[in-house]
Amino acid sequence: SAVSIEKETPETERPHTFLRESDDDGAPSSSSSSSSSSSVRSRFEKMIREAQDSVCEAIEGVDGGGAKFKEDVWSRPGGGGGISRVLQDGAVWEKAGVNVSVVYGVMPPEAYRAATASAQQKPGPVPFFAAGISSVLHPKNPFAPTLHFNYRYFETDAPKDVPGAPRQWWFGGGTDLTPAYIFEEDVKHFHSHRGERRGLGGIFFDDLNDYDQGMLLSFATECANSVVPAYIPIIEKRKDIPFTDQHKAWQQVRRGRYVEFNLVYDRGTTFGLKTGGRIESILVSLPLTARWEYDHKPEEGSEEWKLLDACINPKEWI
Amino acid sequence: SAVSIEKETPETERPHTFLRESDDDGAPSSSSSSSSSSSVRSRFEKMIREAQDSVCEAIEGVDGGGAKFKEDVWSRPGGGGGISRVLQDGAVWEKAGVNVSVVYGVMPPEAYRAATASAQQKPGPVPFFAAGISSVLHPKNPFAPTLHFNYRYFETDAPKDVPGAPRQWWFGGGTDLTPAYIFEEDVKHFHSHRGERRGLGGIFFDDLNDYDQGMLLSFATECANSVVPAYIPIIEKRKDIPFTDQHKAWQQVRRGRYVEFNLVYDRGTTFGLKTGGRIESILVSLPLTARWEYDHKPEEGSEEWKLLDACINPKEWI
Repeated sequence: SAVSIEKETPETERPHTFLRESDDDGAPSSSSSSSSSSSVRSRFEKMIREAQDSVCEAIEGVDGGGAKFKEDVWSRPGGGGGISRVLQDGAVWEKAGVNVSVVYGVMPPEAYRAATASAQQKPGPVPFFAAGISSVLHPKNPFAPTLHFNYRYFETDAPKDVPGAPRQWWFGGGTDLTPAYIFEEDVKHFHSHRGERRGLGGIFFDDLNDYDQGMLLSFATECANSVVPAYIPIIEKRKDIPFTDQHKAWQQVRRGRYVEFNLVYDRGTTFGLKTGGRIESILVSLPLTARWEYDHKPEEGSEEWKLLDACINPKEWI
Repeated sequence: SAVSIEKETPETERPHTFLRESDDDGAPSSSSSSSSSSSVRSRFEKMIREAQDSVCEAIEGVDGGGAKFKEDVWSRPGGGGGISRVLQDGAVWEKAGVNVSVVYGVMPPEAYRAATASAQQKPGPVPFFAAGISSVLHPKNPFAPTLHFNYRYFETDAPKDVPGAPRQWWFGGGTDLTPAYIFEEDVKHFHSHRGERRGLGGIFFDDLNDYDQGMLLSFATECANSVVPAYIPIIEKRKDIPFTDQHKAWQQVRRGRYVEFNLVYDRGTTFGLKTGGRIESILVSLPLTARWEYDHKPEEGSEEWKLLDACINPKEWI
């Protein structure tokens, strides 16, 4: 069950930064082992806020006029906060959420992978910093794929009872495509932006800290900036294809599967719920509508079957 | 992530029992501390299979003719299995699932609460037996409430490396009502069958083993037999009330909330997924359709708001 750390407070406008003053002065408050980590916090925050702007602008542009993103800004008493943006019931997207958050909290010591295995006693709770951009875009047309992306940066401070311990950090994230129907050219286009893949997939990385920190920040930035050119052309091509009730019903069944993955397994969702994040922001990833049919099995060889087959048997798309 | 123990095999007909031969002879195979526990297994199995029959019969009767339960029988190579019954898209119920299962498995030693705290060394994996009936009934009419009930019996064998350790057992279960709109007289009727309550709720118990085993079996049986008289009269009263699109939309939003509770927190669902249960049987509890609107807030004082308020601030209904 969720452990609520702090209640979020609605804010009327976006602050210049969600960082605490002591975290943006180039001199970490509780450790001096990594002199540039504060500025990575601030550079990462800047990057995700810019990415949020550019993705939302691209979505509104394609959606075409009527629907706009609704913005909610919130902060937390101890520092940190976030900006949630949701476009609901648009012409092209059923639900599109793009959130950034900058959160401070405390995590159990098991999660702190002590670089120095020397200390015999177990450390106490570990203060952490987590910033990220997270988005799920669910289009209306069953031939237009859902996109998820998420880029995040974590830092721990030293455990409170081990003041000399090193600050740890890592990057994580990914972008992946979830179609209800396969268009090979779309999947190829999407993957041509990146080398790695997962399922129908995209790119995914986590616990990345074994390269220069600035280089990894550039890598995460490039990934975030690839979202619009990787996704928008696919939507432009698919958003107006005519479809039947059967196509729509299959999309709804796949939406149900998406909800299962999200609520049962998704690390970001689970982390958000467990650290007492803002629930409406976390669950904006869920589709507007979904459907569960008992033991639904598409006919072998059908387009629906091909999608399932590709989810079960990973393919090389390029 | 789920640990799959064994693959289930579809069967063409219901077996007389899902118990393994060695478990129904009155002489437990690996322990002699509890001479009647095998027969409790068999009496519990008989009880849940009868309860499945009577609930399904009552549902089909009210649904009125067309829709029938579809039955799937499955078994597991090492013993055990289950019967899944689903009625989908009926006249009264959108989706009604009533499952029984009888499962053997192995659980991590942490879950084995050693009655004798004498042994210094940690025991190894613990074989368990779990049997239960589990059901979720989602009606179509937004004024007719969803019902969930689940009654289960667990037994552990001694850990493999501690052959003398006592066999442990406990009962658990509950019945609870989830309306989208409140009719006080319905909630009172429902609760008048039982003393305890949870939320809008019903009855819930777990880890019950501090009474005579036969008495607890009778208690679980009485609970299971109360489902039909507690629920069916409410459905008869509400199934044909006229409703608007707004009523239906609110029901869909509450269905979404139901999915969240079920996939994120429900102990039965989590246990089922983690012990590699039959996924289609476990997730039959999900509604046929659901909806998530970002930051949906009913107007203060409205009927929708009253329901939310009652979920947040538990009430004494009788």
